[in-house]
Amino acid sequence: MRRFVIGRGRNFLNRSHQQNLLSSSSSHCQSRFLSSTSVIDSPSSSSMAPTSSPAITVDSLNPKVLKCEYAVRGEIVSIAQRLQQELQTNPGSHSFDEILYCNIGNPQSLGQQPITFFREVLALCDHPSILDRSETQGLFSADSIERAWQILDQIPGRATGAYSHSQGIKGLRDTIAAGIEARDGFPADPNDIFLTDGASPAVHMMMQLLIRSENDGILCPIPQYPLYSASIALHGGTLVPYYLDEATGWGLETSEVKKQLEAAKAKGITVRALVVINPGNPTGQVLAEENQRAIVEFCKKEGLVLLADEVYQENVYVPEKKFHSFKKVSRSMGYGEKDISLVSFQSVSKGYYGECGKRGGYMEVTGFSAEVREQIYKVASVNLCSNISGQILASLVMSPPKTLEDAFNSLEGITCNKAEGAMYLFPRIQLPEKAIKAAEAEKTVPDAFYCRRLLNATGIVLVPGSGFGQVPGTWHFRCTILPQEDKIPAIVTRLTDFHKNFMDKFRN
Amino acid sequence: MRRFVIGRGRNFLNRSHQQNLLSSSSSHCQSRFLSSTSVIDSPSSSSMAPTSSPAITVDSLNPKVLKCEYAVRGEIVSIAQRLQQELQTNPGSHSFDEILYCNIGNPQSLGQQPITFFREVLALCDHPSILDRSETQGLFSADSIERAWQILDQIPGRATGAYSHSQGIKGLRDTIAAGIEARDGFPADPNDIFLTDGASPAVHMMMQLLIRSENDGILCPIPQYPLYSASIALHGGTLVPYYLDEATGWGLETSEVKKQLEAAKAKGITVRALVVINPGNPTGQVLAEENQRAIVEFCKKEGLVLLADEVYQENVYVPEKKFHSFKKVSRSMGYGEKDISLVSFQSVSKGYYGECGKRGGYMEVTGFSAEVREQIYKVASVNLCSNISGQILASLVMSPPKTLEDAFNSLEGITCNKAEGAMYLFPRIQLPEKAIKAAEAEKTVPDAFYCRRLLNATGIVLVPGSGFGQVPGTWHFRCTILPQEDKIPAIVTRLTDFHKNFMDKFRN
Repeated sequence: MRRFVIGRGRNFLNRSHQQNLLSSSSSHCQSRFLSSTSVIDSPSSSSMAPTSSPAITVDSLNPKVLKCEYAVRGEIVSIAQRLQQELQTNPGSHSFDEILYCNIGNPQSLGQQPITFFREVLALCDHPSILDRSETQGLFSADSIERAWQILDQIPGRATGAYSHSQGIKGLRDTIAAGIEARDGFPADPNDIFLTDGASPAVHMMMQLLIRSENDGILCPIPQYPLYSASIALHGGTLVPYYLDEATGWGLETSEVKKQLEAAKAKGITVRALVVINPGNPTGQVLAEENQRAIVEFCKKEGLVLLADEVYQENVYVPEKKFHSFKKVSRSMGYGEKDISLVSFQSVSKGYYGECGKRGGYMEVTGFSAEVREQIYKVASVNLCSNISGQILASLVMSPPKTLEDAFNSLEGITCNKAEGAMYLFPRIQLPEKAIKAAEAEKTVPDAFYCRRLLNATGIVLVPGSGFGQVPGTWHFRCTILPQEDKIPAIVTRLTDFHKNFMDKFRN
Repeated sequence: MRRFVIGRGRNFLNRSHQQNLLSSSSSHCQSRFLSSTSVIDSPSSSSMAPTSSPAITVDSLNPKVLKCEYAVRGEIVSIAQRLQQELQTNPGSHSFDEILYCNIGNPQSLGQQPITFFREVLALCDHPSILDRSETQGLFSADSIERAWQILDQIPGRATGAYSHSQGIKGLRDTIAAGIEARDGFPADPNDIFLTDGASPAVHMMMQLLIRSENDGILCPIPQYPLYSASIALHGGTLVPYYLDEATGWGLETSEVKKQLEAAKAKGITVRALVVINPGNPTGQVLAEENQRAIVEFCKKEGLVLLADEVYQENVYVPEKKFHSFKKVSRSMGYGEKDISLVSFQSVSKGYYGECGKRGGYMEVTGFSAEVREQIYKVASVNLCSNISGQILASLVMSPPKTLEDAFNSLEGITCNKAEGAMYLFPRIQLPEKAIKAAEAEKTVPDAFYCRRLLNATGIVLVPGSGFGQVPGTWHFRCTILPQEDKIPAIVTRLTDFHKNFMDKFRN
C-alpha cells in the first residue's frame, strides 16, 4: 500500500492538565473550553441570546460534560476561525494572509485529492440507475462500475438508502474480514466487525460499556489523542495515564504501564482497559513487534481489555518500520479468543485515502463472551446503523484495487516506480548476462526477448522498453494498469511463475 | 410538499415495562434484550467464542448499558433475521416464503425508490471531477448539476472528504435555516443548527447534557419511540411517562403531563425536559395547533426544555391536519429566545425522501444561554462532525427543487395533478364563460386562446390541451417540468400575474 505523510499534527493536552487526570473526580467544575466560541459561532444571534437561559443554566448541566475537554477543536481552533473570518471580510488585517490548519489530520481540507476509484464507486452507489447507461462507460472506469455492481449485490434490495443491520451490511463486513485476513494472515470473522461513523463512535461505545463510575480507570498513553480523555470524562471514568518516553522516540515501556496500574489500584481504581495508539497520535511512532508482544502479554496477565487504535495503519513511511495489528501479534503468540479481549479501531479518515468527511470506520471485537457481545450489539443498535456511504468506503479501503506495481516489485531483479498518473507502469528489469547473450544470439534486443517469451508462455502482452528509449544498458517494459481488477490475480500468478522460471534458466 | 404513508410501524414497549420506567433505579439488572442475538449474529464464531471472556464479564459492564432496552432492534428483529436466513438456505422451511419487515420506518428497504434529484446531487458531490465532462450533461439533470455546483461552492475548498465545522458546513446550515424560515414564517439562525448523523445522535447529545443522575427525569409520551427510553437509560436518568389518550386519537392532555410531573417531583425527581413526538411515533397522530400552544405554555411555566421530535413533519397525509413546528407555534405566541428552551429534531430518514441509510439530520437549538450553547458545541465536537453526504442531503430536503405543480395549484380555477413520471404537467383550467365567448369570437379554441395571450404577455410557451384531446367542455394545457430551478420563480411570478389579470378581465 502507498504511504503518505498526513495526519500528524493534532494538539495535545498540556502537562499540568495531564497531571490532573487521575486525581480528577466527578465534582462539578466550570469548563474552560471554547470560551470564545459564541463570538465565532453565533455572531448574529448574540443580540437575541439571553444572558441566562429560561429553562436551564450551565451550572445545571451534566458535570461529566462540563469536565470534558477536547483540544483538537478547542480554543485555538475557535480563534483560527475568527481570524479566517477577519481575513475574508478585511484582507490585510493581519500580518499573514491565510490560516494554515496544521492542527488536525484533515488531508482533503489541505488540498489532497480523493482517490478517484473510491469516489467513482461511491457516486455509482449513490445513483445506481446510471449504471446501465452507455454514457456511464465513458465517465467512470470499468473497475469502478464492476465494483459498484458487486457492492450493490451485497446490499439487500440494492437499497443504499435503507437502514442496515446495526453492525453494518453483512456483505461489506465479509469484504472487510477478508481484508483483515489478507493483512494479518489470521482469520477474521465478519460477525466481529461493527461498522461505525468514523472510529470515534466506536471508542465511545467501548467506554460506555466499560465505565461504571469514576472508580473505573482506563490506561491511556500521554501524550494521547484527546478523544480518549474526552470520552472517558463524558462517561464518568478516570483516565490512568502512562507516559510515553520521548527519549526513546515515544517508546512504550510496559514497566511504566505496570507502575501506573499499581498506582491506580492503590488509589482504589479498577483499571479495565489499556488504550494503545499505533502508529501514535500525536507522537507518530510505530511500535516494534516485540514491544507489542509485551503489551499483549501484559493485558492478558492483568485481565485488561486492549483497545488498539490502529487508524494510522496505512500511515507508515519509514522503510524500516512496519505496521502489525495487535490481533496479528496476539494470534502469532498463540493467543486466541479465550486469552485476550481485544478491540481494533480503523477509520476511512486516515491512510492514503484520508476521507474524513465520509465518517466511515469499524471496530473488530474479539475475545468477549456472547453475553458481552450482545450488549455491544445493543448499544450499536440504539443509533440504528452507521451511514451507508461510510460503510461502503470502509469496505473499499480494506479491499482496494489490486495493483500490478506491488506484484512487479515482488519479483527478483524488477523495480517499479509508482504510477502517479496516466495509465502505465514502466518497470526496470535487471536481465542476467546469460539472458542478454541468448537474446543477442537470436538477434533480438534483450527486453523484447523477455517480452516475447512471456507472451508465448502466458499470453500476457507487454511493450519492450526499447520501443520508448532507455538509458543504454538498462531494460524496461511498459505495462498498462488498466486490466480489470478480477483479471489481476491471474496476471500476477502467471507473470510470477514465468519470471521465476526465466531467472532460474538464465541466472548467471 | 408531497406526503407519503411511510414509517408508521415501530414497535413500542409493553405496558408492564412502561409502568416500571419511573420506578427503575440504576441498580444492576440483567438485561432481557437480544437473548437470541448470538445465534443470528455470530453463527460462525459460536464454536470459538468462550463461555466467559478473559478480561470482562457481562456482570462487570456499565449497569446503565445493561438496563437499556431498544425494542425496534430487539428480539423480534433477531428472530426475523434468523428466519430470513433459514428461508434463504432452505426454501420452503416455513409456511411463508418471505419476511415482511413492518417494524421500522425503512421505506427503501421495502422498495420505495429514492428521489432522483437528491441522488444525482449526492453522486455529483461524491465525484465532482465529472461535473465538467460533456457526458455528465446527458446522464444528470441540469438542475442537479447546478445544485451540485452551488453546494460545492458552499464547502471550503470544495473538499467533500474533509472534516467540517462540528455543527456542519456553514453554507448548508444557511440553506437549512432558510428552509426553516420558509416553512415557519419566522427567522432561523444557521448558528442554531447542529447537523448530525440522523436524529438519534442529536437526541443522545441532549440527554447527555441534561441528565446528571437518576434523580433527573425526562417527561416522555407513552407509547414512545424507544430511542428515548434507551438514551435516558444509557445516560442514567429517569423516564417520567405521560400517557397519550388512545380514546381521543392518542391525544396529548397537558393535565396528564402536569399530573405526572407532580408525581415525579413528589418522588424527588427533578424533571428537566419534555419530549413531544409530532407527528407521533408509534402513534401517528398530528397535534392540533391549540394543543401545541398549551404544551409550549406548560414548558415555559414549568421551566422545562421542550424536546420536539419533528422528524415526521413531511408525513402528514390527512387533508384536515397540518404540521406546525413548535418553533413556529411558540414564536406565533410571541415567545422568543428568552422565553423557552426548544430543540427541534429533523432527519433525512423520514418524509417523502426516506433516506435512512444516509444518516443525515439536524437539531435546531433555541433559547439557551451562550454558555450552554458552548457545551452543546463541545459535545458535538468530540465526534468531529457528521458525515458530509448526510449534511448535503439535510440541506436538500430543507430546500427541495421548487415545483410548478405547487404554483399551478395556487391559481384560481386551476387544478393540477402531481407529475409522477415523464416530464409534464397537464393542469386543468376552468375558463370563465366570457373567456370562452371571446375565444369563439376569435375563432380559436378556448385553451389556445389562453395560451396565446399568456405567450404574448409573458413569453411563457405552453401547449393547449386541445392538441392532445380532452373530455369535451374541459380545458387543459401541457407544461414541461424541466425549466431550470432558478427560472421557476420568474415563471411562477409572471404566470400568476397574467392569470390574475386574465381572470379579472373575463370573470363571469
